[in-house]
Amino acid sequence: MASQASDRVTAAVLIIGDEILSGRTQDVNLNAIATYLGAYGVDLAEARVVADDEGDIIAALDALRTRYDYVVTTGGIGPTHDDITADCVAKAFGVALEEDAEIIAAMTARFGEPPNAARRRMARIPVGGSKVVNPVNGPPGFQIGNVFVLAGVPSIMRGMLQDVGHRLKGGKVVIARTVRVEGFGEGVIAAPLEAVAKNHPTESLGSYPFFSADGYGANLVVRGRDADEVEATVAELIAALEAVGVSNITQVEG
Amino acid sequence: MASQASDRVTAAVLIIGDEILSGRTQDVNLNAIATYLGAYGVDLAEARVVADDEGDIIAALDALRTRYDYVVTTGGIGPTHDDITADCVAKAFGVALEEDAEIIAAMTARFGEPPNAARRRMARIPVGGSKVVNPVNGPPGFQIGNVFVLAGVPSIMRGMLQDVGHRLKGGKVVIARTVRVEGFGEGVIAAPLEAVAKNHPTESLGSYPFFSADGYGANLVVRGRDADEVEATVAELIAALEAVGVSNITQVEG
Repeated sequence: MASQASDRVTAAVLIIGDEILSGRTQDVNLNAIATYLGAYGVDLAEARVVADDEGDIIAALDALRTRYDYVVTTGGIGPTHDDITADCVAKAFGVALEEDAEIIAAMTARFGEPPNAARRRMARIPVGGSKVVNPVNGPPGFQIGNVFVLAGVPSIMRGMLQDVGHRLKGGKVVIARTVRVEGFGEGVIAAPLEAVAKNHPTESLGSYPFFSADGYGANLVVRGRDADEVEATVAELIAALEAVGVSNITQVEG
Repeated sequence: MASQASDRVTAAVLIIGDEILSGRTQDVNLNAIATYLGAYGVDLAEARVVADDEGDIIAALDALRTRYDYVVTTGGIGPTHDDITADCVAKAFGVALEEDAEIIAAMTARFGEPPNAARRRMARIPVGGSKVVNPVNGPPGFQIGNVFVLAGVPSIMRGMLQDVGHRLKGGKVVIARTVRVEGFGEGVIAAPLEAVAKNHPTESLGSYPFFSADGYGANLVVRGRDADEVEATVAELIAALEAVGVSNITQVEG
């Protein structure tokens, strides 16, 4: 039996930062988080990128945390005036920010003197929150309720993510199989693909075309939570493609 | 005089596709659109990524098109059953989709026969919309109202984008200058940065830390629409950094 929608554990990503929206920086955190959550059976259902603006951050956070099981934010937790994520999260939850004595002690040890005012901002955790370990560099992130607040620098974000997975109510992991068709366009593939999709409403069937100097075609991805059903769908899809004259069909990784 | 907020022309990007949310594909379109719009003085103010779900797409589209001057969507305009962007956009605007005779004629010429049912789906444009030229491969995108509907394949998306800029009510282009500090952390930089930011409320000052095998530091970016004001802010920032003992300050591109 294929999984039902009610089995689904969902998450959203909220990327905070003018540098992504200005085009200055290419975001890579969304993809890393999607892949990481997928391994825990948590489906990334939506993502938003907002500017360093209190109203925008709080509105997006409230929309996402009430709709999805989890929210992961990235960015805006440094010591500078444009780092307002912790303040916004605390406001959204209606709690105060408090300095964490352990973080202050770690900063003092690191710098050989008590942290200055800017660095102290990074030692603040919302009341009721818990720290998310930063194994890379600098102060931790934090969790409050269903929201995880992580750094924006990709190497630090990925490090912090390692302290997130074990806190998640995992779902059943999605299995994905890719059927690659070369030399045939989506116009030919669409009809058999849709017919197979209709036969398997609990699986997701997607078509991702490619065009390159070496040729063109599409990767057809079958996703589902029941291994037998996914394999049966793949076999039916290949047969349906062959029935309309499509050749050059291979199963590939990813 | 620095520009006022009312001069701002804004846009949002709506990325449509399960493949981005599943982590299968790394989005690169957001960054390309942000950079492209920036050259026309249009600020990307928000971005969202939603799944191939009619309700989600329409809700996001309506939220964004009513708030910002422009919306650019990517993805979901191919011939397969999971390509529902055109249908959703038409529903959001309360209009029908109609087959475009020119697109059908171009498809017929290309394939040597009339397009099949799947390909005909790509020839549909919402009533009142206009085509966006696809100089790369396949059928066009379209514009309706303040919404531009482009392909998801990056090479095609970038091609279509070339037919978008001349339709925009351009704003005054943002000038960005980057002051790079090496060997000093944000904890030291934060206070002078904030002081300068407070003196220049119409400029945006951001701090983007970096950490690499070669060292650490931060890129401090001053953004504004008035060249003289931006240059004055940069000079004041450098002086303020030097006053607290920061050295290794350079001005860099980007």
